[in-house]
Amino acid sequence: MRRDAEATKQRLIAAGRAEFAARGLNGARVDRIAEAAQANKAQIYHYFQSKAGLFDAVWEDVVREAVESLPLDVEDLPGAAALLCDAYVDHPELSRLVTWRRLEGADLPLDGLAARDGQGRIERIGQALRDGVVAGRFEAGLLFALILHVAAFWEFTSPDVMALVTVTDREGRREVVRSVTAALLEGSGA
Amino acid sequence: MRRDAEATKQRLIAAGRAEFAARGLNGARVDRIAEAAQANKAQIYHYFQSKAGLFDAVWEDVVREAVESLPLDVEDLPGAAALLCDAYVDHPELSRLVTWRRLEGADLPLDGLAARDGQGRIERIGQALRDGVVAGRFEAGLLFALILHVAAFWEFTSPDVMALVTVTDREGRREVVRSVTAALLEGSGA
Repeated sequence: MRRDAEATKQRLIAAGRAEFAARGLNGARVDRIAEAAQANKAQIYHYFQSKAGLFDAVWEDVVREAVESLPLDVEDLPGAAALLCDAYVDHPELSRLVTWRRLEGADLPLDGLAARDGQGRIERIGQALRDGVVAGRFEAGLLFALILHVAAFWEFTSPDVMALVTVTDREGRREVVRSVTAALLEGSGA
Repeated sequence: MRRDAEATKQRLIAAGRAEFAARGLNGARVDRIAEAAQANKAQIYHYFQSKAGLFDAVWEDVVREAVESLPLDVEDLPGAAALLCDAYVDHPELSRLVTWRRLEGADLPLDGLAARDGQGRIERIGQALRDGVVAGRFEAGLLFALILHVAAFWEFTSPDVMALVTVTDREGRREVVRSVTAALLEGSGA
């Protein structure tokens, strides 16, 4: 019985990921999620309390996957940014969920896995800066946020602007992200 | 009569800007826009054909304002990025509309003012690169898109990540954008 419950929850999270990525929190329909998960609406409310509760569970699941698959080598931050760039390309729902959450989540819990894991990575970058392993004029938290932003360049840029850029293949995109991140570490910013 | 029609259109565009910024294209309600504009739904369909037509008109209006208020001094691209950063802070609806459009606009017209104006700016940056007025390892279109992306750093970064960054005032934010853009122009990207 407990195993069935866990399997149902996982199917609801998987179906929720697709629905929320496509339509966002407000646009998502719980009956569509229930049907795709071969479950029913009552189970969504039972396991996740609300549509927003399911969205939070989907988000934690996506973050957990990203955190586990994306190691941070502080001695190669451009390489780390390139890995994240690839992850965005391979999992298009990732940047869409990040963005829906920003647009629609007026009352976000900011103490989830993303914040805790981010804090740990920032501490490691901070130590590397103090040790002189990493150069750069930005403090660790800002540098971490900038690296995430640079890695998302190809996802967050609007189609109008992207139509004016000639680089389109995966390898070329990754190299731009690597190169911009390297510039962040080198630039005097004068 | 014609003046009344133009005034009604402008009120609908202004009301649409607020509604679309808050709720996006799919979430926006035409009756709420009509009420806020002291107009009626039939006028929306008369002047703009559809809700999507009004969204496109709002978008062109927002782009026109941005284009007119944001000159591009190719000899000071970090300064241009800093101006855009300020514009994002002063007009929070700007980044929200950009983002809704990316998430919801599966069938965007890519030949609007944003594309035409962007092309002109890219040509000026390209000339500056050829003249040696601007340094940098990125070609003009990519450099332009990267500058837009850097300027939007504070808007596009999710609240979870932003909670880990200590810079919060307007001046500090602008200086980060200026400094990152300078790094793009200096970095060898090796």
